[in-house]
Formats: sequence, structure tokens, C-alpha cells
Amino acid sequence: MLPNQPGANNFGPRIMQLADHLAQWSEQEGALTVTYFSQAHKKVAAELDLLLRAAGMEARTDPLGNVIGRYAARVPNAKTLLLGSHYDTVRDGGKYDGRLGILVPLVLIEHLHRSGQQLPFNIELLCFSEEEGVRFPIGYLGSQAIAGKFDPQNLDKTDDNGIPLRKVLEEAAVDVNSLGILARDAADLIGYVEIHIEQGPSLLAANVPLAVVTGIAGDVRHRIAVTGEAGHAGTVAMQFRHDAAAAAAEMILALEKRCSGQDSLVGTVGQLVVPNGAMNVIPGRCEFSTDIRAATNEMRDAAVMDVLVACNEISRTRGVKVEATEVLRMPAVPLSPFLQERLAASAKRLGVEPLLLPSGAGHDAAMMASLCESAMMFVRCGNGGVSHSPREIITEDDADFAARVLFDFLVSMADEYDA
Amino acid sequence: MLPNQPGANNFGPRIMQLADHLAQWSEQEGALTVTYFSQAHKKVAAELDLLLRAAGMEARTDPLGNVIGRYAARVPNAKTLLLGSHYDTVRDGGKYDGRLGILVPLVLIEHLHRSGQQLPFNIELLCFSEEEGVRFPIGYLGSQAIAGKFDPQNLDKTDDNGIPLRKVLEEAAVDVNSLGILARDAADLIGYVEIHIEQGPSLLAANVPLAVVTGIAGDVRHRIAVTGEAGHAGTVAMQFRHDAAAAAAEMILALEKRCSGQDSLVGTVGQLVVPNGAMNVIPGRCEFSTDIRAATNEMRDAAVMDVLVACNEISRTRGVKVEATEVLRMPAVPLSPFLQERLAASAKRLGVEPLLLPSGAGHDAAMMASLCESAMMFVRCGNGGVSHSPREIITEDDADFAARVLFDFLVSMADEYDA
Repeated sequence: MLPNQPGANNFGPRIMQLADHLAQWSEQEGALTVTYFSQAHKKVAAELDLLLRAAGMEARTDPLGNVIGRYAARVPNAKTLLLGSHYDTVRDGGKYDGRLGILVPLVLIEHLHRSGQQLPFNIELLCFSEEEGVRFPIGYLGSQAIAGKFDPQNLDKTDDNGIPLRKVLEEAAVDVNSLGILARDAADLIGYVEIHIEQGPSLLAANVPLAVVTGIAGDVRHRIAVTGEAGHAGTVAMQFRHDAAAAAAEMILALEKRCSGQDSLVGTVGQLVVPNGAMNVIPGRCEFSTDIRAATNEMRDAAVMDVLVACNEISRTRGVKVEATEVLRMPAVPLSPFLQERLAASAKRLGVEPLLLPSGAGHDAAMMASLCESAMMFVRCGNGGVSHSPREIITEDDADFAARVLFDFLVSMADEYDA
Repeated sequence: MLPNQPGANNFGPRIMQLADHLAQWSEQEGALTVTYFSQAHKKVAAELDLLLRAAGMEARTDPLGNVIGRYAARVPNAKTLLLGSHYDTVRDGGKYDGRLGILVPLVLIEHLHRSGQQLPFNIELLCFSEEEGVRFPIGYLGSQAIAGKFDPQNLDKTDDNGIPLRKVLEEAAVDVNSLGILARDAADLIGYVEIHIEQGPSLLAANVPLAVVTGIAGDVRHRIAVTGEAGHAGTVAMQFRHDAAAAAAEMILALEKRCSGQDSLVGTVGQLVVPNGAMNVIPGRCEFSTDIRAATNEMRDAAVMDVLVACNEISRTRGVKVEATEVLRMPAVPLSPFLQERLAASAKRLGVEPLLLPSGAGHDAAMMASLCESAMMFVRCGNGGVSHSPREIITEDDADFAARVLFDFLVSMADEYDA
């Protein structure tokens, strides 16, 4: 038996209402800030627990704060499909980043429950407690544990007040030596699907409400230091200069050029400074950061290599020294072709050819992909695609469309299991 | 009667010895730092007073700390030729910047005095107390007053401890309302000649020990702020970016290109920063400074205009906003063609075709030129032309050559007065 299809625009208003509802708890007045194990964070977790139960799920909160709801299959010993995303936020963030991936499945399960329908597989809704890495410099804390990738070294990382994660957990009566048991067994799982706002303008520009994500870019970051020769801005003729800032400017443009024109490739110089610069002194040093990402390690690493080679060539031509220190290297995570195909088919059945986009940002799906078949869908952002900002918005129609596509996906998966 | 010509290499060792001698007083251990009215500054002034007297001069120190020696003409009612430079230093500076222009005339007057010779004009050796603008944001304090350009608003400027110049002077029992009397009467003066290290590599590169300075560049400075659109370094495709740092990089290279290839023109971006930049955030803002100088206001202003136009074009192309605020505009100061010619003739008589160089840096001569015919000579720097650094050096031979050229100049001027 297939679940009934809901009519258009049934889910949208409920999703928007729930996002507003959850946004009322914050650590910061006049801004939405919910960081790991703050009072606001615990309050949101408690509220999610209530919502999950009201939607007909068994709910529990695990020792790391993940809130997990289980909507049982209509048959015993069924496998489980995981859906979800995170409920923590950045400082002064938006109300859809993470939470949309919880609320879309939630309203579908509310619908299934209300209409007395069950699927041939269990659905678990994973509300991850920590993904943003704001309070502790960790990130993906919730999904790390469930994917069986929890790193015990995380326990010694400290927040801005110098409090280690270990202490925070011990005060919550958590046995920090037993967090390994949170890892799920892949044998029980069908896969994991995460819905997330795009956090960029591609869908907006293409006038398409939804994208199927092809993979999660891994980034490589460097700190680059250019050392030239300081000098008096008035007395050293241009041809005798070894200006560290001018060299850096040329390197920045070389990076920008090399990282343009290839679909999923992006390159960013986010930090840039002439230390102790004075208006009348030729810069003797300039420091900047690079962050290069692509959907595949190969595409990214080729760009990283070309940019470093370009920096070297520029430094030779200009008679300056350049030093590059790699500070981060995250592998790119391919997502499940099978699930991508199913999600795209659902969107097409509902009349939309979805974009196929790589994700430049990391998501819980990057962790979950090491456990089971994982996939993501992006929902169009308004306001030029802004995210990590109170200006982050989506439309009710787009929220509704994402829900209907995910519902169609559940229907098609159920079909297959019934067949 | 002409003064006797000294033999080669008589003056060099004495100049080097005196420069070392004066360098023993500093506010800072292990570095040469002599800022306005510090203990070290007062000690150097007292030592200069002794040296001037020992060289046969009447010496006095004026209320602003200028130490002034007068070596009388052999005839009454003679006019006066001014020679000199400043004795203050930058922080951790070199021992020749400023002081060479005091010590070269000093050793010549020592020689005249020792050999019982006088000239048909008075020589006054002006040891200016403050030129660098390190303690107070003023600069040329000593020569300002003597040129009759002292600005009473200077009295309210404060040092890093918030102490105004007014208080420093009042504590030294100076009547701050009567500083105008320090201004000299142009009718008594023949002119002003200043010897200074080049503070750049042009003489070194040309393998020439001396330059006659054609003029002092005036600089125009701007603060430039580029406002783009901040965004996630992973989620905004390159073609959707409005990256403030990449735009700034293009502007920096445009400035560099426009200011290259014209003889006295130089352009510098000395300050550069992405405020609060993060490695994974596309810069929404980038700030930098520009400093453009040339020997003529026309050449400089044309470059300033072209650079601002280029910044505007780049900002339009990239969809960012650029704001430029002019923060300094100093007029270029032409130097006396008559004195330039005489100094060049002296160098040629001693076997050297001097370079003709503009001065990109400001000097006391820029103030003195408003009072009387003024000229400058540059002495070759070693170490690639480095200045404002303990690595600033000159050779004994070059110091000696500068002294002999100045001596020849005095001789030729004396000839003329006798004729």
C-alpha cells in the first residue's frame, strides 16, 4: 500500500511555522545563536523531542545531544532509512541552516502518522546536536559519533572559556569512554538523506527550487607568507622594489583565475594583511590564506598545485620569497549515485528538472557517507543566497516543494520494497 | 684668498667616527632611537653644541631644540649660507639619516678653523631637532620654525602617551606664543644646502657616489575601502562572487603598473587588510592605502587620477563598491636650479658626473625652500639602499667624496663673492 500523496502547498506553511518556533530559543538577544550544550541548545533539543513524539515517533536523546526519532515500519525486522540534519547554529545565524533538514522529514512523518500510514522500512529522524564547530573547534560532533568516526582527541578540545568537551560531557553524566557505542551498524541501514539550504546563489540564479547534490567538496587550505624588501615609499624607484603586497596581489589574481571556469571548483583568499603596514613603507611582508575546493580531490589538487606553482613563479619574477604551509586537507566525499538518481527522478515527476550541484560546504552527510549510502538535496536560498546570517531566507513554496519531492522519494522507495 | 683644498680621504674617517660617536645615545638599548626631546635627544643636542664650539663656531640651541652653529665670515655684514640637516632618528634607525648632513659641513668647518681660514660669507650649520615625525605626528618641526612655517596647531598634537607638544615645550620653559621669532629673514641668506643619504638604491645601481637632487616629490595619499559581498568560501560559485580582496588585488596591480616607467613617479600600497578575515569566508571588505609621488605635481596628479579611475572601473566590473578618501596632499618642491648647477659643477671638477635624482622622501630642504634658494645632494647608500634601518650604511670614501664636493662648492661660492 502506497502512502497518499499530499496536495500541493500542504507542507510549506507547517515547515515555516516550525522554523520560526524553534528560532525563539537563542543564547543571544536579538540574534539566533544556539551552540553546543548551551541552555538554548538544550531547550531546542527538548522541544524537538516533544515534536518527534507528537509526530508518532519513539524519541530519545543520546549522550552527545543527538535527538533521534524512530517511525516504525509496518513490518518487523525492516531496514531503516535515515533522514536529518543539525539543530545547532552559527552565531547570529539563520533559522533554516540545518533545521530545514529536520523539519521537512518531520512534517512528512506528521502526515504519515496523521493518516495512519506506515512504510515498509523504518524512518529515523536524526537531529544532530553539533555540526557548525562554533563552541568547540570540532564540527560534525553529532554525526561523527553516529557514523562511528568519533575521535577521542575531541574530548580535550576547549571552548573560549578554556572548558574541555570532556568536562562538559562529564557534568552531563556522560560516560566519555563509551561514546563508541553510538556508532550505527551499516547492515541495518538503507541510507541517509539530508535536505539543506544551498547557502549560495546558484539555484536562485538558475530559477530552480531544488538541486540534487553530487558530492561534498573537500578543501585544502594554506597559509601563504610573502617576504619582500621593506623600503621607503618615496625613495625606492619602482624597478628596484621587491614589494610583498604587490606580489601577493598578483598571486591572489592567479588563484582567482585558475579557480574560475571549472564547475565545482572554487578558490578563496579570505585572510589578507600587510603586518604593521605603514602608508609610506613598501611592504616587506604580506600574509594571506587560500582555500580551494572542488567536488573531486583530483580537480581540487590540480588547482592547488597550479596555484602554488604560480605563486612560486611570481615570487621568482619579483625577487620575493614565498612560503606556503598547508593547514587543512579534507577529502572530497562523493554521494550515492543510486540515491541521487532516485531524488532527481522524484523532482522530475513533480515537474522540475533539478540542478546537479556540488556542495562547497561540509555537511553531516560527509560523515554519514562513510557509514552508508548518503545523499543530499539543496533548497533555493533567497537574498542572493546569503547564509550564516539573519538575512538567510527561503520561500514557503520552495520548502513545500522540497517536502513533496522527499515524499515522492519515500513513496518510490516504498514501492520498491513492496515489489 | 681661497681656502686650501684638503687632500683626498681626509674627511671620510672623521665623518664616520663622528657618526659612530653620536650613535651612542639612544632611548632604546640595542637600537638607535632618538625622538624629540627624549633624554637621548637632549644629550645629542648637548654633544653637537660642544662639537660646533670646538670647530670654531658660536653655538646656541633655540627653544625648539635646533642646535645652530655660526662660523663667521672674514668680513662684517656678510650674507649667510645655511648648511645642515636633522639629528633626530626614526625608531631603530640608521646613524647617517639626517646626521650626515650635519657632519659633512662640520668637518669642513673644523678644517677651515684648524687652518685659520674664513670665507667671504657666514656659514650657519643648522642641526634640526625634529624632522622624522616619530614622537609627535608633525615632521619638519625644527625647519618649519626656521623657515617661518611653524603651525600653532602643532602645539596640540600629542605623543603616544597623550602628552601635547605644548606641555613638553612649557615644561622646558619655552614661551610657545613666541615661536614665530625663530623665523629667519631671507634677505640675510644666500641659500640652504643639505646633504642626505639617498635612502634608495639608484646611486648604488648606477655605481655613482653622489646625486644632485632636482626636487622633492610631494605625495598624495588615499585610504581606499572596497566593499563587496561576504559569502561562504565553499558555496558561492566564482561567477557569483563580489570579492573585495580580489578587487583590491586588481587595483593594487593597476596602481603598480601606472606608477612604473616614469622616472620620478612612485606608487605604494603600504597598508592592506581584510578586516576580520576568515579562511573560509569570501572577503566582504578590503582596505588599503595608496601613496603616490613624483617630482612634479602634474606628473603625480595625473597618476593619482588614473589610479582612481582604474579603481572605479575595476569596482564596476566586479560589482563592488570603492570609496577613496584623500588623507594627505603635499606639494612637490622644486629645488634651486642655480645651486643645483653649482653643486653638479663641483662634482664634475672632482671627476664624477653626478646623477640627477628627484627625492621621493620629504626633507628639511622642502621647508627651507620656502625661505631661500635650497638644494640637496644625495650620498650613495650600501646594502641595496636600505634606510630607516640599522642596516643603513655608507662607505668612508663616499662620505669623503661628498665632503670634498661640498668643499669645492664653498670654494667656488667664495670665489664668486671675492670676485
